[in-house]
Formats: sequence, structure tokens, C-alpha cells
Amino acid sequence: MTIFSVNDIAERVRSGGTTAVEIARDVLERCRKYDAVQKQVWILRLDEESLCAQAARIDSRIKAGEVLPLAGVPFAVKDNIDVAGLETTAACPAFAYTPEVSAPVVERLQEAGALLVGKTNLDQFATGLVGVRSPYGAVQNAFNREYVSGGSSSGSAVAVAAGLVAFALGTDTAGSGRVPAAFNHLIGLKPTKGRWSTRGVVPACRSLDCVSVFTNDVRDAGLVDDCLNWFDEKDPFSRPAAGSPGTGAEFSFGVARDEQLQWFGDQASRQAYEKAVGHLEMLGGKKVTVDISPLSDCAAMLYRGPWVAERAAAVGDLLKNNPGAIHPAVRGAMRDGQGVNGVDTFNALYRLKEFERMAGNMWKGMDILVLPTTPTIYRISELLAEPEVLNANLGLYTNFVNLLDMSAIALPSGQRENGTGTGISLIGPAHMDRGLLEIAARFETQFGDMTRPPLDLESSGDTVVQLAVCGAHLHGMPLNWQLASRQAKLVSRTRTAPVYKMYAMEVSPPKPALIHTGAEGTSIEVEIYELSTEDFGSFVEEVPPPLAIGSVDLEGGDTVKGFVAEPRACDGAMDISRFGGWRRYMATQNA
Amino acid sequence: MTIFSVNDIAERVRSGGTTAVEIARDVLERCRKYDAVQKQVWILRLDEESLCAQAARIDSRIKAGEVLPLAGVPFAVKDNIDVAGLETTAACPAFAYTPEVSAPVVERLQEAGALLVGKTNLDQFATGLVGVRSPYGAVQNAFNREYVSGGSSSGSAVAVAAGLVAFALGTDTAGSGRVPAAFNHLIGLKPTKGRWSTRGVVPACRSLDCVSVFTNDVRDAGLVDDCLNWFDEKDPFSRPAAGSPGTGAEFSFGVARDEQLQWFGDQASRQAYEKAVGHLEMLGGKKVTVDISPLSDCAAMLYRGPWVAERAAAVGDLLKNNPGAIHPAVRGAMRDGQGVNGVDTFNALYRLKEFERMAGNMWKGMDILVLPTTPTIYRISELLAEPEVLNANLGLYTNFVNLLDMSAIALPSGQRENGTGTGISLIGPAHMDRGLLEIAARFETQFGDMTRPPLDLESSGDTVVQLAVCGAHLHGMPLNWQLASRQAKLVSRTRTAPVYKMYAMEVSPPKPALIHTGAEGTSIEVEIYELSTEDFGSFVEEVPPPLAIGSVDLEGGDTVKGFVAEPRACDGAMDISRFGGWRRYMATQNA
Repeated sequence: MTIFSVNDIAERVRSGGTTAVEIARDVLERCRKYDAVQKQVWILRLDEESLCAQAARIDSRIKAGEVLPLAGVPFAVKDNIDVAGLETTAACPAFAYTPEVSAPVVERLQEAGALLVGKTNLDQFATGLVGVRSPYGAVQNAFNREYVSGGSSSGSAVAVAAGLVAFALGTDTAGSGRVPAAFNHLIGLKPTKGRWSTRGVVPACRSLDCVSVFTNDVRDAGLVDDCLNWFDEKDPFSRPAAGSPGTGAEFSFGVARDEQLQWFGDQASRQAYEKAVGHLEMLGGKKVTVDISPLSDCAAMLYRGPWVAERAAAVGDLLKNNPGAIHPAVRGAMRDGQGVNGVDTFNALYRLKEFERMAGNMWKGMDILVLPTTPTIYRISELLAEPEVLNANLGLYTNFVNLLDMSAIALPSGQRENGTGTGISLIGPAHMDRGLLEIAARFETQFGDMTRPPLDLESSGDTVVQLAVCGAHLHGMPLNWQLASRQAKLVSRTRTAPVYKMYAMEVSPPKPALIHTGAEGTSIEVEIYELSTEDFGSFVEEVPPPLAIGSVDLEGGDTVKGFVAEPRACDGAMDISRFGGWRRYMATQNA
Repeated sequence: MTIFSVNDIAERVRSGGTTAVEIARDVLERCRKYDAVQKQVWILRLDEESLCAQAARIDSRIKAGEVLPLAGVPFAVKDNIDVAGLETTAACPAFAYTPEVSAPVVERLQEAGALLVGKTNLDQFATGLVGVRSPYGAVQNAFNREYVSGGSSSGSAVAVAAGLVAFALGTDTAGSGRVPAAFNHLIGLKPTKGRWSTRGVVPACRSLDCVSVFTNDVRDAGLVDDCLNWFDEKDPFSRPAAGSPGTGAEFSFGVARDEQLQWFGDQASRQAYEKAVGHLEMLGGKKVTVDISPLSDCAAMLYRGPWVAERAAAVGDLLKNNPGAIHPAVRGAMRDGQGVNGVDTFNALYRLKEFERMAGNMWKGMDILVLPTTPTIYRISELLAEPEVLNANLGLYTNFVNLLDMSAIALPSGQRENGTGTGISLIGPAHMDRGLLEIAARFETQFGDMTRPPLDLESSGDTVVQLAVCGAHLHGMPLNWQLASRQAKLVSRTRTAPVYKMYAMEVSPPKPALIHTGAEGTSIEVEIYELSTEDFGSFVEEVPPPLAIGSVDLEGGDTVKGFVAEPRACDGAMDISRFGGWRRYMATQNA
């Protein structure tokens, strides 16, 4: 697929070379095609009617003489950012709500004429750097689907890389706007904290969160920054735009001592970094070697220090009332957060002050810092096998940036043999955003390798089976991993037709039996997952008696595959139909 | 006593009109006299020899041609600020340590030629606004000794008000540098956070603490600021001096709505405030009425929010290992701090961000804010009866200032019939320090009432009795209140001569019996308190059998009054002499 350019589209639409409606139709076609590759890029996408209506309104505004900097430019929004009238899930169905107003960042982009296509998948609650921590499915790398897309802004990155939209908003707390950029050959701009409003964003760590953007080139990122750099009176974390220092033709850049960089054996990453450093020198940059150990020490605080309490704070009572609704890896971090006390918190904030001072001194010796964006990349299967350690490895060079109030831009630096991208990050002090964009643009112009590897578009060829689950396989329940490990995607939460009874069997882990009464009964809560026929087959193999996979009638009239039970399942079991579902029944058991 | 002026002394010493040694001798004489009034202003004072040696070194420097801005100016330091070689107690003997280096603020003042006289009493760990929370005795108001001096920088304020020194350093987290200024007719400058180094200061709430200064006039405060306004590379909370905006002849000042000010019936405070507001208008100030409710709400967070965890963090393991060593009211705040969790902490920090935004908006409508420094004042006896509520009342108009990163200067505004001072505070945004000093100087020149009421110098006439305690009356132990309520002052911690045995009696609360062996025995830890004969008499009345007040031999050879026991005290009691004291024995019992 052709890659979109923000600047080109806006120019073409403004000049009448095309219309927003034509762009919308093109986008719909691109998305439809890519759905066959991986639907899980999206949590919600606008349907044809509403997308075209939106585009038509843009066209009217242009006709009326409005000059729109982003005229007709299709974009996507990470699903932890509010769009009025669309559900915000943060990749956690139990947390979902429908906001009445859009986040100002979305509003401003639409005001500028951009065309909203949908809400993208993410590591749940933006907690992760991998893109596999979502009940909506693991987002795969656009260039090699065995590999992670990077996260947490996984869907946004792949939506841009796959040419479905011209740019996409992510969020970035620990590197979520930079790691997926690196893995998918994109630009990832992570502005200074408070430069872009974070109102209407589900917090990860509210004191550290930034909205970020993925684009195909540096100029596009600059244009988005033009639209979003704005002081939001109603966001207490917003900061008045300070003068953003440029760097001039000559600049100095820090690099880490050789022995301070870990690559986990990834020679391609290492070589790409070394080549990029050479290129920066050729641009007139003066290289200085710096000791990054204070940055690494600071980075380690992000998940080992009190900031995990912010992650717990962000979900309110959900962690207490419905912990099963939270992805295990995410829940682990939040549970750590619940254990944090105030004394530790303040002691860590004092230590951060010391790191800030050290960082301040580092800036006296260099204009910017240049680090690899990540040490390496992993396969999705590797991540599923070792979810926490490998995730942490990916954040080695990104975790400290927001803690230390720095700005950063992630740039493509090359590729591995497997097609996935390597990247470097230009990192500056707060408010250096435009300076970073300047250097990045020069780097891109002189040395940017715009020839990306081909997208990995091979359709899995699998037909997809829909499966209704109602018990221990529900999202967050003990056996949900049997679906997650098969990359099953949660496609809807619904109810059965009102013809069922549900019984609680005396087994461990506790499971229900869903019994069709043949007559009047109760509507029972179910979740519908999609998985490949092959995966479905292996899943059915594992279902133990007295349960079985049969057919389940849904409230809309559809019938899908799903859990049923043999009659013996009711022997000695208790009728729990009055609870309307397993989740509500279990809540009473845990209370 | 004549009141010292910083500027005058420095000029006289520099010009040869007098010498630092002469000043030192004068100070010694003043202090000796005032000791008869209230010794408890000081926790430690330099002896004649070392004070005169220090003064002689200053004189030599002047002779050698050094130009010293504070030549020979006598000053005192609150005993939570390090002076090399002198014990820092923070008014908690069990916490005491002897630092090897001075706090930079002290170093800079001595470098500028100032003459250090001693370390002053304070509310323990700078936690309090009253001056009565100290085992070293309640510091009394310099102008009426029935009333509180204000705290926590109680001794520093009274040392200046009583003319013992020309200026004194305090610290200010919740108002500790302003409340005692108001009560004692002084200037209290509380600079912007990070303007003066806080390295070498025992933290109260480290993220909020400021060093402050008490002086007799505004110009003196400005001169101290000239010496202390300095970026301390080694203090992570230090901030580069930002341009400090002046205000010009015309300025606007905010006042609270009438109904938002509480006075607790103190009409003199109210009238003084209203008069001061009128005076500021006569100076050309444009009065604007503002809604201070966000400030009041923010103020309430200081002790009800997570910042109490900073107070717990400041004392490390002491709270766990030796809670009895901490004053009950202070311990209460710290215990609250131990209960704070990380989630609450971050939620409060988010709320503070909102308050900061509101405050930022308030500054758009006025240059400075003018509030009473305190609503009222209380008698020492009233504070002892209701230690927490009345303390909180005193902080109503000061508690929010550091939380919201504001600068402030407390100025005398008048007096009550009882002689104690009323005050107003000029409050500005961060870095407005010099602007505040300018307005304060104009206010003082035009309307300052320099005729203070006479100092309350009446000697209590009491002879003083020294009493050795070794058990439940030790600082922090269950019966210490019997001493505290009599304003007994802890004058030393020492040991008995090595001729004693100590027994643990089976009573409640647990108490020891100190038995003179008549021959060889053990040295036992004791604390020596001073109290008036009358108070001593009433104390002895309350001692129950088999304990008695007799004579105790100390290790230096002195004999003082102290706890002894009848022989029957040893019946069934256990010899615990090997512990060397009750505190160490009790520690094993609690473990």
C-alpha cells in the first residue's frame, strides 16, 4: 500500500486535487484489505456512513473558504484518548465508558480538518511496551507478523505503518510513543510534558503521561505539533509553551559509553546505532561521550519505584472490585502500586530531584543525547512466554525520559534481516521539541532510508471462528490465557438469548455450566472471541468434561460456537441464573 | 534591651566604630541577663571563649582588608540547621548528631562576617506553629510570657525580639518563619523555595521546606537575602535565581472576602489587618477582593494530605525503633504519615496541580496577596490543653504558601493589649522576593510602628531546681508530661556515678527503681530537668510510693535532686542494671 503523507494530503485536499470524501473512501478500502491481515489494529473503527459524513463536512468547510492545515488527513487515535460519543476502553472492556466530549488534542486535530478513522488497540491502560497485553488481540509488527509491534501504542503505530492513516496519536509514559515507532520504521514524536494537553486521556502515570504522534516523516510530525502545541487552561499539567531553543547548524550530541549499552545480542541494532552516530557527525554534530548510568538508574525507578501507584490510582476501584478484568501483567504492576506507601513515594521523589540535577548538568555538556530507541526486538511468542522481563528490556533507553522532563523524537535507523525496524532517539531537555525536529529533519533529508521493507501482508488464510465464553475463559478470569495464547480477539460482549440457566459446578477452578432450558430462561453474559480454525481446534481439544463446545444462541438471534455442558454437570450444582452471568456470581463469592 | 540592627552593626564594625569582640561581649551580657527570663530560647549557646575567638577572627579579617557585608553581626541558628562541630538536635535528643560540615546558609553568613551565637529551640522536627513542643521547654512570647512565641522557629524569633542577636535563621514549611515573627513584632522573610539552600537542614517536609530569617527591619532582611540568594549545585531543591520582578510604585494587592477570614474573636488582629490594608492603599496599592477558598482548601491538605509522610520520612527508623523519643503531638503527625499510601499521595499531587493552576490564575489579577499572618494568638496553657486544634488554627493563612510555591514576608501590623504582636503577610508568586521586600520597605517607612511594647523581662523569681529522672519521666516516656506541663526544661542527658543498680518494678506503667549500692555499681542514664521551686514542689507531691525524690550522684561528681526508691521497691523486682538505663531496657521489652 502507498504510504500517506500528512503534508501531501492536506495540500491536495486544500488545492482541490482531491476531496476528503475521496480520501475517506480510499481509507475504507485500505482498512478493509488490511483487516484480512490483522483486524486487531483497531478496537473501534467508524463505519462507512459516518466516516463519509465526517469527510463531507470537511469538504464543506473548505468550500466555505476555511484554510485547514490538516484538510482531509486521515488519522487514528489510541483508545485511551477520548473521542466524544465513542467508547474509550483503554483495552479493558470492564473499564469502558463513553465520553461526552473529545480530548482537546482530538478536537484540535478535527478543528484543523483531520479525518478521524477510529480508535486503536494498545497494551491495556498503556502499561507495556509490547502490544500483546490486550484482550482485543496482540498487534503484530507491520513488517513481520511474528514480531511484536511494540507498545503500548501498538495499533496507532501499525495503522500508520500499514498506510491505513497518515498519522496517529499515541501516548507515552515509559516509551509507548517511541518503541513502536522504532519497530515499525516510523517517526515517533514524544513532546515535552505539558506541551500537548493530556485532558481526556486515561492516565497511565498521570504525572508523566504525554500524548505522542506517529508519522511517516519528520515534517509531518512538525505539522501535527503546530496544531497541538497549545496551553490548555483546564489541564493542570499543561504548561505555557516556553521558547523552544533551536540548535543551529552546529550542535553537540551525547552518546553512551560502549560498555553502557546493552543489545541482548542484536548486532543489527548496534550497527544501525553506530551508523546513525556517524551520520550525525557528518551533519556537523560534535560527538561527546557521556556516562548514562544516572539515566539508567533513574529509568529503573519507573517500575520499581512509587510511580506504579499512579497506575493503580488511574483505575480507581476497578482493581479492588473487579481485578479479574485487568490483564495479569498490567494487574501485577498495579498491585505493586497498591503496596507503595507515602514515605517511599516522597523518598523516591527526593531521589528524582537528585537525578534531575544530574541530568541538568549533563545538558551543560551537550545539546542533545542520542541513544538507540530499544536494545532489540522480540517475537510475540517470546513475549508471551516471558512477559515481564522482556518488556522491561525494551524500555532501557526510554523509561527515564519523562521522569526527567525531557523531550524526544524516535527516528528510523535501519532494519533487521527479519524486516523489523531499528531506531534511534534524539533526546533533549524540556522545551527542545522544535530543536529536535530540526536536527531530525536534516538527518532524514541527508541519510533517511525511505525504502522500507515490504509490509507483511500475508493473510493467515485462516477462516475465523467465533466462540462464546461465559465462565473461566472470560477476560481476566483464570483460563483466559488459553485464548490469549492463541491470539484470540475479543470482538464483543453480549448476552445469550433468554433461554438459559447457569449452574455453578463444584470444580477447581470454579466453572459454570450453561444449560439451554429449551423454553424460557435467563439471558446470560458472554464474551465473543474470534480465533483461527486451527487455534479453535486445538482449543476444543483442551475442554474437559462435563463441558463441551456446542452452539450458543445470542440475544440478537445469532448462534455461535460456545461452551455448553453435559447433563451430569448439573448434579449437585447450584442454579445461579439470577446473577445473569458468571462474573457477577463470582463477585459475590470473593466478597 | 536595645534592639540590634544588622545594617548598623555591620557598618560600625566595618568602619572601626567597634569590634566584633566588643559585640561578642555585649551579646554574652545580654544573653546572661535574658537567661534569668527564659533560658529555653537556646538549645546550645557558644561559651565565652569560643564566641570571643570567633569574633577575634572576624576582626582579623577586617584588619586584613576584607569587606564583610555582615561584619560582626551576631546571629542565631534554629537547631534543625547544621553547624559544623555543634550537635543538631531538631529538639529531639534521641535524634541528635554532630555534623562535620555546616549548612551552606550558615557557612555563607559566617563567610560574610556574621557572628554565630548559638542554636535555638524549636517545635520538635519543626512540626508545629506554637513553640511549646520541645523537651527543652516551651519558648514564651518575648512580650508576654503567658503567650506562645509561635513556632516552629520559636527560639530564633525570641532571640531577635529580645535583642540577643541581630537576626536569626528559622525554617518555614507551614508558616514556621512567619507566625513567630507576627507574635514577636518582627520581620519574617520566607523566600521562594530553593532560593536559599536547604542542604544541611533536618527536613520537615523536604519538598516544601525553606530556610527563613527573622530581623527587626525590612532592610536587614534584604541584606541577609543578598548573602543567601545563591544556587547550590549540591542541593537538588536549589533553583537558579530567576529574575525577581519588582512591582513599581503602583501595585495591586488581593485581600480576602470579609466572610472568608476567621479571627476566633480576636478583634485586635482584625483591626490591625484592616488598618494595614488601608495603609497599603495609601501607598498607591490597588485593592482587589479575591476568593481565597482554593487557598484555604489547599492549606488543609498540608496536615490532612500525604505531606505528613514526608515528616515520617525525615526521621527514618526513629519512629519505628524509638517512638517514645518523639513528642506526642509530633509523633501523631508522623504516625498519620506512616499510614499514607502511594495512591493517595499521587492523587493529592494531582489535586495540588489543580490548585497551582488556580493560584496561577489568581496572580493574573493582582501583584501580591495580603493576608493576616495568623487569625489570633493563644496562651501557652491553652495550647497545652488543646495541642492540635489550636496549632492548626494558627496556620490558616500560612499553610498553603509553600505548597503553592509562593514567596512571603511577614510584617508587624500592631499589637494586642497583652503586648503580643499582630502581623500581616505579603505573599507573592515564586521569585517575587525582591518585589515583596520593596513594598514591605515602603510600608515600614511610611506606617511602620517601631515603638514596640516593652519586653516581658520579669524574672519568675523562682529559684530553679535540677531534677534527675531515669524512668517513666524520660523524654518521650509515658509520664514525661508531668514535666512538660510544668514547663520543665531538659538541660542535659548524662549518667549517674557508677554506684547504682536499677530494678524493674512490676507496676503499670512500668517504672524502675534506682538503688544506690553504697559501693561499686553501674552508671545509669539520666536526664536532668530544670523547673521552678514551686513546680518542683507540686511535682514531688505527685510521686507515688515506693518511689521518692532524694539525691542522685552524677558521673561528673555533682549531686542533684532525683528519683530514688524505698527498699521495698526491690521486692520481686528484676535487676536490669546491665542495660545501663531504662530506655535500653524498655527497648528489649517492646521488641
